[in-house]
Amino acid sequence: MIDMTLDQILELLENEQTNELRTNLNQMRPEDIGYIINQLPSDDQRIIFSLLEAEMASEVLPDLRDEVRDNILENINQRRLVKIMDEMDSDEATDIAAELDEAQLKDVLEKIDKEDSEEIKELLVYDEDTAGGLMQKEIISVQADLKRDEIIEYIRENYEDVENFHYIFVIDEHEKLLGILEVTNLLLARKERSARELMEKDIISVPVNMDQEQVAHMFRKYDLYILPVVDENNVLLGRITVDDIIDVIDEEASEDAYKMVGLESEDKVFTKPINSVKKRLPWLTLNLFTALLVSSVVGIFEQTIAKLSVLAVLMPIVAGLGGNSGTQTLTVIVRGIALGELTIHNTAKAIIKEVTVGLINGLLIGSAAMLIAYFLKGNLMLGVVLGAAMICNMFIAGLVGSLIPVVLKSLKIDPALASSIIITMLTDIGGFASFLGLATIFLK
Amino acid sequence: MIDMTLDQILELLENEQTNELRTNLNQMRPEDIGYIINQLPSDDQRIIFSLLEAEMASEVLPDLRDEVRDNILENINQRRLVKIMDEMDSDEATDIAAELDEAQLKDVLEKIDKEDSEEIKELLVYDEDTAGGLMQKEIISVQADLKRDEIIEYIRENYEDVENFHYIFVIDEHEKLLGILEVTNLLLARKERSARELMEKDIISVPVNMDQEQVAHMFRKYDLYILPVVDENNVLLGRITVDDIIDVIDEEASEDAYKMVGLESEDKVFTKPINSVKKRLPWLTLNLFTALLVSSVVGIFEQTIAKLSVLAVLMPIVAGLGGNSGTQTLTVIVRGIALGELTIHNTAKAIIKEVTVGLINGLLIGSAAMLIAYFLKGNLMLGVVLGAAMICNMFIAGLVGSLIPVVLKSLKIDPALASSIIITMLTDIGGFASFLGLATIFLK
Repeated sequence: MIDMTLDQILELLENEQTNELRTNLNQMRPEDIGYIINQLPSDDQRIIFSLLEAEMASEVLPDLRDEVRDNILENINQRRLVKIMDEMDSDEATDIAAELDEAQLKDVLEKIDKEDSEEIKELLVYDEDTAGGLMQKEIISVQADLKRDEIIEYIRENYEDVENFHYIFVIDEHEKLLGILEVTNLLLARKERSARELMEKDIISVPVNMDQEQVAHMFRKYDLYILPVVDENNVLLGRITVDDIIDVIDEEASEDAYKMVGLESEDKVFTKPINSVKKRLPWLTLNLFTALLVSSVVGIFEQTIAKLSVLAVLMPIVAGLGGNSGTQTLTVIVRGIALGELTIHNTAKAIIKEVTVGLINGLLIGSAAMLIAYFLKGNLMLGVVLGAAMICNMFIAGLVGSLIPVVLKSLKIDPALASSIIITMLTDIGGFASFLGLATIFLK
Repeated sequence: MIDMTLDQILELLENEQTNELRTNLNQMRPEDIGYIINQLPSDDQRIIFSLLEAEMASEVLPDLRDEVRDNILENINQRRLVKIMDEMDSDEATDIAAELDEAQLKDVLEKIDKEDSEEIKELLVYDEDTAGGLMQKEIISVQADLKRDEIIEYIRENYEDVENFHYIFVIDEHEKLLGILEVTNLLLARKERSARELMEKDIISVPVNMDQEQVAHMFRKYDLYILPVVDENNVLLGRITVDDIIDVIDEEASEDAYKMVGLESEDKVFTKPINSVKKRLPWLTLNLFTALLVSSVVGIFEQTIAKLSVLAVLMPIVAGLGGNSGTQTLTVIVRGIALGELTIHNTAKAIIKEVTVGLINGLLIGSAAMLIAYFLKGNLMLGVVLGAAMICNMFIAGLVGSLIPVVLKSLKIDPALASSIIITMLTDIGGFASFLGLATIFLK
């Protein structure tokens, strides 16, 4: 095992010490190579990857960022691709297969190992965001009647292909899942015990079409390491391992954070600028319209502002605090939903809580703002109007910040879509309307 | 195994069918009971928990939300608590121990099993956000010279205590970690092979004081199921399992989402309103001052607004789009840092990209806004000023949204703290100053 830093690799690359580079690279951990390739300029990405042996390359490829992988796949020799995919687990090979164009895919599926090819074709059918899209076909399953030594013999013959397989699936003659047998139990069992006697019967499995977010919830809730995937007849189709679930959890957390500010998942740090522009533009266009709506509310009170321009100076305070307070509530509720803490049984309680918090904070911050405005501008009534508008707006912030994600969830729309844009539009309108409205009435 | 829904439990509770409730509960999955208790009113939480046998209670307790656990611990009989903690794994027992008051803790540590008590005392020393705070003492470790059958015999004698132990740690006579032996290899090994021959030598371990976020990164990067924890002399101290890491990843994702809007981690959906108020108030107070700062910038141009009140109507558009655009950039950068995609080698590239995206989106959205303002207000110059201010502000948004988290990170301050409040303050100031400044110059 060799450790090389990014700088050492770049130095060897610059000095064209290709042989030394190749030797060293192929003794590194694949994850470390992946981490380094992800940070290289795109030409160097291809050069370094080309120096990896097929087995190493098969382990590095799944660790590459999407755009790095695309860069390498676009320029790869077809024969090498076949060699690399032959070394891969079925779930990872399927992810790569899904990225290939039709001609490339057809060619690869013809040339790789027949069994692998069948598995990839089967897995390609499933939506990548479901249990089927996460599962791999590499499992060890045994008939329930097999005795200890027969099972061990079976494992010995089939071991090679399956990593981390501490769990053996026990099936009946129709391949229906009966239970799970831990290798440890097998190790300690007496000779005459059968899989049926040794297995855990009370197990958790998921249907092949379950959404990946729900699958992640099963792992989270039941502290699982692996999870069998079955069809509607309880026939065992594959398994999902916890390391893939960590990726799902990262992905879902990014997605929630992203959706709240109108970003798409594919818009990452190193997405090409033009693609980021395209992805952000529709949302910013929507934002332009919500801003125009807000602006038209202010427009209603243009005459009031013309008479009393100090209102224009103070109005960002009401809107700003309402917006931030509403975004806080939104974040608490959306995370609560994402982690499964908020359910139908306790929704009302959560909304009442957020409204209460908004109101109390509004009273405190509003009073402070009232005093500050009074001291700065010497106009008591102006201070009172500002304070009252802030109380009103932070109440609105608590209400819409909690109500909107909850309503969206009950409509089966992703609650993270109750993005800050909607909330800030509503708190902007609430803030400007209440402040300028009260000012129009009380500050003639 | 029995499944009961929340409603079925509530019905039995209401009808005071305590015996049936007790029998059924103790045949459920602990995780399902935990999930249900989390949703009950606080009196019912205590009643249901009191019906659980000690072993079941020991598995349910770690699944409860913090405030639910506090509610139960405040009212628990000391003898029962000892019984429950005796059944727990060392890491979970330590988490409970950390919540007890001094007298309670002292009493528990005296009364529980001596070995457990020693382990808890050792684990209590470590900061809960480090590897030491995550690890458990329940491990199986063997000397390197032990032969296959000796190892199996050793496991048989020590098996009871350790769940999911598919990995056996191999140590030398000074308890220094030498390697990891997978149970599967043991199962398939010949009799005469020793631990040293069968183990994997090239393993990953972490120091006991490593921050939990970095520990999570190790699991994420190397697709680990368990990770040994060692002291500075490589002496094996304990192990961390992947299920605990999923909790860490959830926690860190919540923390990032929270920090960006100025929330503290303990401020959850069902935190008491008064505690949420206390936690949010300092940040909203800070927000009041940033809002006053923004307001004072608008104040500079009060005379301009007094002459041309339509500026007050349009100015929220410039600020609003800049704020949202800046928050998008902030979110992309903060997630990139959290997932380890952004490193010192590629920071400049990321900032240039975000500024470019801001500028292009500014040009497009600014031009649209220019045309809309011209058609609505019939004033070409007003439209041009609005458009130019928006281009300028979305450029600022890309710059501060990417620069601030990156600078904070290089100062070893959490980049998520570059919260939306700072970014929106800067884009508010940038937006108002550029719009009203340009208007003062060009719209006399």
